[in-house]
Amino acid sequence: MGALIGILGGGQLARMLALAGYPLGLRFRVLDPAPDAPAGAVAEHICGSYEDKAALNHFALDVSVITYEFENVPASSVEHLATHVHQRAPIYPPPLALATGQDRLLEKQLFERLGIGVPRFARVDSPAELEQAVMKLGRPAVLKTRRLGYDGKGQARIMEGTDLGAAYRALCPADARPGGLILEEFVAFDVEASVIAVRSRTGEVRTWPLVLNEHSSGILRRSRAPLAAFWSGAGSASTASLDEQATVAATRIMEALDYVGVLAVEFFVKEGRLLASEIAPRVHNSGHWTIEGSITSQFENHLRAVAGLPLGETGMRFAGAAAVMHNLVGAVPEVGEPTGLLGVPGCHVHLYGKSARPGRKVGHATVVGAPAEIAVRSEQLRSIADQYWQA
Amino acid sequence: MGALIGILGGGQLARMLALAGYPLGLRFRVLDPAPDAPAGAVAEHICGSYEDKAALNHFALDVSVITYEFENVPASSVEHLATHVHQRAPIYPPPLALATGQDRLLEKQLFERLGIGVPRFARVDSPAELEQAVMKLGRPAVLKTRRLGYDGKGQARIMEGTDLGAAYRALCPADARPGGLILEEFVAFDVEASVIAVRSRTGEVRTWPLVLNEHSSGILRRSRAPLAAFWSGAGSASTASLDEQATVAATRIMEALDYVGVLAVEFFVKEGRLLASEIAPRVHNSGHWTIEGSITSQFENHLRAVAGLPLGETGMRFAGAAAVMHNLVGAVPEVGEPTGLLGVPGCHVHLYGKSARPGRKVGHATVVGAPAEIAVRSEQLRSIADQYWQA
Repeated sequence: MGALIGILGGGQLARMLALAGYPLGLRFRVLDPAPDAPAGAVAEHICGSYEDKAALNHFALDVSVITYEFENVPASSVEHLATHVHQRAPIYPPPLALATGQDRLLEKQLFERLGIGVPRFARVDSPAELEQAVMKLGRPAVLKTRRLGYDGKGQARIMEGTDLGAAYRALCPADARPGGLILEEFVAFDVEASVIAVRSRTGEVRTWPLVLNEHSSGILRRSRAPLAAFWSGAGSASTASLDEQATVAATRIMEALDYVGVLAVEFFVKEGRLLASEIAPRVHNSGHWTIEGSITSQFENHLRAVAGLPLGETGMRFAGAAAVMHNLVGAVPEVGEPTGLLGVPGCHVHLYGKSARPGRKVGHATVVGAPAEIAVRSEQLRSIADQYWQA
Repeated sequence: MGALIGILGGGQLARMLALAGYPLGLRFRVLDPAPDAPAGAVAEHICGSYEDKAALNHFALDVSVITYEFENVPASSVEHLATHVHQRAPIYPPPLALATGQDRLLEKQLFERLGIGVPRFARVDSPAELEQAVMKLGRPAVLKTRRLGYDGKGQARIMEGTDLGAAYRALCPADARPGGLILEEFVAFDVEASVIAVRSRTGEVRTWPLVLNEHSSGILRRSRAPLAAFWSGAGSASTASLDEQATVAATRIMEALDYVGVLAVEFFVKEGRLLASEIAPRVHNSGHWTIEGSITSQFENHLRAVAGLPLGETGMRFAGAAAVMHNLVGAVPEVGEPTGLLGVPGCHVHLYGKSARPGRKVGHATVVGAPAEIAVRSEQLRSIADQYWQA
């Protein structure tokens, strides 16, 4: 019997981890409070709260290693597991990475400390600090909660004329604990990009090619890789130099955190420079194209890393290949009809088994090939995805 | 909730079907008498006998379609399902294909009727008929049971000097029902090949490139595709003509059987001609390379076919790509050590979660790339597979 991997969270990321891991002989258990958690179809599912110590203990029984699929795992849960099972079953990525990924301020302070380009930022714990921060960074700027923001939630733009008191109260209501905000310089970026990287237990680092990302209403809409196949606007810098910057940044971050597993770093690209925006200490939506587009997927390599196996190759599936991934959000498109997703030649469909509601990621679809070959297919996919998109 | 697919049999083929089907939003239930059936880890598992009508009814409850992963499903079970659930949940591939695939004589009669090249053969139901058959076909020849033979079992070579009475009794003991044998001409083939083909509910047919197969002790040891990348010995015929012959044969067979799903046809290749040896009315070991080597795997296309979805492309993953699959038999090789399977760059490992015993297929491993690129990797894989091989 293969090693039992415990995953905190049973969403689509846990589901795709499990699907990638069975061929390696691994087995899976997830902890998730939702009875219909997507990973429940393909893994043992402990249905319980992350704060419930009995559920955590049940979850941790006999697992070889513990990992997670979302960065908002409560710190107390990780602490409980770290205290009670870490000797037997390590937690990867390490709790320090989780704590850093949960907090926009800690993230940016880490980038700064490591000499990684980062938009200017200021800590905001009171309306007075917001005023000072706006004076320092200027307008426009973006005010964000340090914690629990995702898909564009927990953010407010500070424009000319924006009432700072109202903006502060919107993100930090009077009945909540005060503070916990961060003001960030508004970056008029050329494009957004991300790097998916993986580090093994022995410290080996591999990165996939840089990904070009497009968001809509704060939700990732399309990812294309490698960036160089789709964008040539790096100016005096080459796209190869961007890949190099991304690899250096991801490597520094993973080494600083003594990281094990897959890490995503999101960047703004501006005038040939990468500015680190945030990290996700887990497999990431902008790496879903790796399932068909690269030799080893982010899911398989995350498992190889946390299970102590050798890492797999992270190059594109073949020389000259490119991949385009479209997210399916809010409603599940037709799959089988001639006008459905599988009517697009070469389309790889991934549905997560989730009930649909606006803003919810219910699946994704990918095409792989030479960039010129897949242009038409990608547009067909985009048209179907757009038709059902509800943010 | 996606359609529920019922699979008779819960071995590695059912396991790989399920792993391929979750991304399409399908769900899976298997019926298998073994408590540790490999598919049980990834699908609902009804643990019961194929002959147990209560188990069959439980299995069939609410399924949208029924399929199978091995051709020795008892005819009575299929008959029960066909009578009781076929109106609601069709059985694909159709029972006629199953009956044909279960019987070496029916298979060869079908090939003959369809004008497909086939080694000469004769029905043998008594020692006297064996004598006549040997006079007709000459020696050497191969005596086989018509039913329940697999991986080289249920066969005897008839050489110069072989005692025909003893050979007959070895395959058809005195206490068994007499007869049920077939004598086949011995074919001194150049190589063995197979074609994996799929037919949709609407009659669309697609085939993957012809596969070059090597057996050892009657067990498939290595498959390489496309055949043309690894063998150029077709003589005056081109390998393209072999692909053409294979496609014609598979298409005729599937149309004759009103087939839906994936079908494998195994051939002897001799002097530029294909001679059909047998069919498997299911996904097939010689098609496992399609998971990474082709655009759509045999597993996904089988599911698309039986679920009434459009078929996916069956070409190689990229122009000029080749794939080599090594079977892992008898013992599970090291996976993680530097000398293990994942130490081979680009190696894709598939373990079935089975306990090891001699002759048992416990997994397979595949490498994909340009033929010259993967030669060294394939030899590394072969060396590891050989070291653990126990037939």
